[in-house]
Amino acid sequence: MNLTRVAAMTAFLFSTGAGAASLGGPLNLADEGSFFVNGENVNTQYPGASLATGPGAPGRITVNQMYVHYRIPAASKALPVIMVHGSNHSGVTYETTPDGREGWATYFVRRGHPVYVVDHAGRGRSGFNPTRINEVRDKPGTNPSTLPTMFFGTHERAWVNFRFGPEYGKPFPNLQFPLEALDQYLQQLIVNSETALERGAAHTVDALAVLLDKIGPAVVMVHSQSGVYGVDVVRKRPQAVRALVSVEGGCENLGADDAKSAFAKVPFVSVWGDNSVGAKGTVNGDARRNRCLEAVDAIKAAGGRAAQIMLPSIGIAGNSHMMMMDKNNLQVADVVLKWIADNAAR
Amino acid sequence: MNLTRVAAMTAFLFSTGAGAASLGGPLNLADEGSFFVNGENVNTQYPGASLATGPGAPGRITVNQMYVHYRIPAASKALPVIMVHGSNHSGVTYETTPDGREGWATYFVRRGHPVYVVDHAGRGRSGFNPTRINEVRDKPGTNPSTLPTMFFGTHERAWVNFRFGPEYGKPFPNLQFPLEALDQYLQQLIVNSETALERGAAHTVDALAVLLDKIGPAVVMVHSQSGVYGVDVVRKRPQAVRALVSVEGGCENLGADDAKSAFAKVPFVSVWGDNSVGAKGTVNGDARRNRCLEAVDAIKAAGGRAAQIMLPSIGIAGNSHMMMMDKNNLQVADVVLKWIADNAAR
Repeated sequence: MNLTRVAAMTAFLFSTGAGAASLGGPLNLADEGSFFVNGENVNTQYPGASLATGPGAPGRITVNQMYVHYRIPAASKALPVIMVHGSNHSGVTYETTPDGREGWATYFVRRGHPVYVVDHAGRGRSGFNPTRINEVRDKPGTNPSTLPTMFFGTHERAWVNFRFGPEYGKPFPNLQFPLEALDQYLQQLIVNSETALERGAAHTVDALAVLLDKIGPAVVMVHSQSGVYGVDVVRKRPQAVRALVSVEGGCENLGADDAKSAFAKVPFVSVWGDNSVGAKGTVNGDARRNRCLEAVDAIKAAGGRAAQIMLPSIGIAGNSHMMMMDKNNLQVADVVLKWIADNAAR
Repeated sequence: MNLTRVAAMTAFLFSTGAGAASLGGPLNLADEGSFFVNGENVNTQYPGASLATGPGAPGRITVNQMYVHYRIPAASKALPVIMVHGSNHSGVTYETTPDGREGWATYFVRRGHPVYVVDHAGRGRSGFNPTRINEVRDKPGTNPSTLPTMFFGTHERAWVNFRFGPEYGKPFPNLQFPLEALDQYLQQLIVNSETALERGAAHTVDALAVLLDKIGPAVVMVHSQSGVYGVDVVRKRPQAVRALVSVEGGCENLGADDAKSAFAKVPFVSVWGDNSVGAKGTVNGDARRNRCLEAVDAIKAAGGRAAQIMLPSIGIAGNSHMMMMDKNNLQVADVVLKWIADNAAR
């Protein structure tokens, strides 16, 4: 893969301005908008300084909230779906693909599902708590090791972990990810700033439970890093999660006890692409996938409903870890939509 | 104002789940989605550590990009409008109001305008560069004063600066801001993390110019902090900005030279609420408003088209600085829509 050529192709694609619609058809919405859940008020001694109006005095701030963007179809005829992104991403994961095609958020809406796309608490439009950073900066003698680590995976790491290919710059031969729009994709990667919240990712789990309380029973879709958050949400709200869809999500915390209790009536599916088999140097390979298969088997053994869908077993090849953006993303979406229609409790 | 009562009312409002639509009517879209502009690739020596997979090696990251969320009406019959938020906010400013009514983004779409809502470069879904934070944390001996200040205005400061009332907890008697949903509003406030980019807010100005190059001529709407960004964008792309709408935006950088050159053919409007007159302790009071009136007068004196709309002069009272969320937000929107229809160059 010639990366200079990729850049040139990207420049061409995105110089064409507002051309053809990204959507496969009109989007007719009864409602669309946003709200927040789970915010908590805390005191801060170090709110930083406005570049325009000077240093801020100590006071109250709101933290731990989660941004929720909802789209409600005019012809709503299916369960709501909550879409949760993974590490170094935001809800943009489920919007327009990097090469300008329809993403899963609007596609699921056009198939009749109300869709709720979130940004993890502490990330993106959900904001984060800057107090520790300002304190280290502004309070003499504060130990810099008290700063939160602010993880931002590099391009090199993203390429291998998100399974574009076996090593940076080298794609898998059958790769479905639209590498010609790589520059667009890399712009949606952001910092895991939830480390700047007191309990980190736990606030996202709390917020998802509160979201279910607000909107009522729904399918929860998780991806990658948020796989384990989905498991935690099922534990917290087994009555409200009508199904858990895990798109190459981690299952490390789904144990035999969960299989017998929280997942007894919550259908679970774990979806994986072919290039996860034997992949080296990626967190999204055999170990994670096999751990999910164990979880699926444990749920089935306990009498619950669960499946691991290996896309190659149904004739779909070449998917990256970012299958909601791959060139065949709507084909994969159709697999997930069918599984939801066949399995999710109404 | 009894703040305990406010909290109780908020709890009631948001316990009702997915009830009535926030929109005043169906939203029929030819297209909807998102993309990024202005990303640049840089090297980082300090990408931080993943809590799941450990410390990251140095490599390439993408920074300075700007997130753009677009909604294209099925019946598009008017100029595109780019909506830019202010300090401690994101594009959520223009979405559903805190009390669950329609915001300006969808309202302008339903009036025929394609609408592009952005998050400033360095903020919200646009992400930021965490390198300096990780460097201070992980490289022994790094001076903490090299950390970016991460300004996050407190509730107390927001109340006065965004002009809910003369002092914290005390509203203006005629206030139009929906204080019963204050808890929702405070959750949309986020950190000004663009200070973690090399040239701070300048990247947002660059990105807005690139956005105009991509989508073609448009009306640019700015608010508060981004008022001066709008002026800079007109300087950079005087042919592409069909009008600059400044919603209580700063005009500090709009000088006599600009009035004669960049603004010669770019109509300009500066919109203000009544409680800005004589307001104490707020950046959004007499000084800022009067500076904008000077700019308006300079453009008119040079033969250009400009106006300052004082809402009370047309019978609209009680608006806060966040007039796109006020209870009469659609009445104010109608004033802006009419000004655009009457003045923006086609």
